[in-house]
Amino acid sequence: MRFTSEQRLDDGVLEREFTLGEVPGILWTPVSASVPAPLILLGHPGGLHRMYPRLVARARRSAADGFATATIELPGSGDRPRSDAAEQARADLRRALEAGEPVDEEIVDRLVLPLVAKAVPEWRTTLDALLSLPEIGGPVGYSGGVIAIGIRLAVVEPRISAAGLFAGSFVPRTMFEEARRVTIPLHVLLQWDDEGNDRQAALDLFDAFGSKEKSLHANMGGHTGVPQFAGDVVAGFFTRHLR
Amino acid sequence: MRFTSEQRLDDGVLEREFTLGEVPGILWTPVSASVPAPLILLGHPGGLHRMYPRLVARARRSAADGFATATIELPGSGDRPRSDAAEQARADLRRALEAGEPVDEEIVDRLVLPLVAKAVPEWRTTLDALLSLPEIGGPVGYSGGVIAIGIRLAVVEPRISAAGLFAGSFVPRTMFEEARRVTIPLHVLLQWDDEGNDRQAALDLFDAFGSKEKSLHANMGGHTGVPQFAGDVVAGFFTRHLR
Repeated sequence: MRFTSEQRLDDGVLEREFTLGEVPGILWTPVSASVPAPLILLGHPGGLHRMYPRLVARARRSAADGFATATIELPGSGDRPRSDAAEQARADLRRALEAGEPVDEEIVDRLVLPLVAKAVPEWRTTLDALLSLPEIGGPVGYSGGVIAIGIRLAVVEPRISAAGLFAGSFVPRTMFEEARRVTIPLHVLLQWDDEGNDRQAALDLFDAFGSKEKSLHANMGGHTGVPQFAGDVVAGFFTRHLR
Repeated sequence: MRFTSEQRLDDGVLEREFTLGEVPGILWTPVSASVPAPLILLGHPGGLHRMYPRLVARARRSAADGFATATIELPGSGDRPRSDAAEQARADLRRALEAGEPVDEEIVDRLVLPLVAKAVPEWRTTLDALLSLPEIGGPVGYSGGVIAIGIRLAVVEPRISAAGLFAGSFVPRTMFEEARRVTIPLHVLLQWDDEGNDRQAALDLFDAFGSKEKSLHANMGGHTGVPQFAGDVVAGFFTRHLR
């Protein structure tokens, strides 16, 4: 892990960009923390620059609650090399959504399964590096999308002890079986009228999760319209489980 | 409105029992409030004595947030005269649930429609009386079940400006049309595996509500297992809308 830039935000949050091999990322830590901070991994749909305003808002809020946060660029997004197969699958998905057609499971598989297979090991390597820093302790949470990445991480990564998942993207049907193996506390956010997602599939997925403590919070406002108060509730969830 | 008893609870909450005509009720007010307090009407399934421990817990929590709360006995419950028709409908519902059969809409209509028709005017009369007390101001919220009563109140009673509804009982299909006419902010609680309710109908009902701000919060734990943290979130909803 190599830090490439460092700046102190006005509210006492230290923001550091880093690279880990070919993967760029950002780490935010609360400057005032006197003990190693618990860590929340911030998931997003890809494109660190485009997503930065929303990511830094989540990071600031989490720092105010005493959490360090970190995120990495997804394979095939931002400045990372594109995959032709993924670009094709993304275009096929967009075409189906714009035509108002049901989305073929085959398209979802082509888009999401390779992404999960590549992103999850990168997240785990990042976690190794982050947890070796003296200012970061455990426990660790995962927050956001891509929900399929969150599911796989929750199953394979024992250091993640709670997840706030954003049900805002398609999940391959084969991963519903993995969802049954998730047992950590879950907080699932669903935008009820998400224009880029299948509500019934999201409800089925919530039902499938094996966790004894799981909550589904559905709100209005479209894919990008998650209300402010919903973020406050997610913050409460992590405070309950990671502190 | 005639007060029949008064006691001060240990945490600075004044609890007063009252009767309004033939209807018994309880009013809780925060003693320390210096201005008229906003009011939350506490809905419940009937049986004030049986429900008292849970009601007083909700009242204490609300008082800590600065709210007055009040509840009344439902028609045909507690010490109020039974209706043969309602008792028959309740027995028919219980039989269907115990047999694991789908519940006939006709049974739900027989059980719920007369209850709504009788309870809603009683709630409105109670509201008249409560709002004439100097220690109680507005705005007013409705919190809890019976959800069909909450729906009707939200439609016909303009003084109610936000509702936290517990989707834990059956709703007559004819009332889905009323749900479309609800426009106040809504917070809907659903117990995902509620043994006495129909999950799909609850989801359809949430979809039907006309409110621009509506949130569905689903949790695990069966009908009576609403987790503590879910109550905290409801409290945040009312603080946002009534203060």
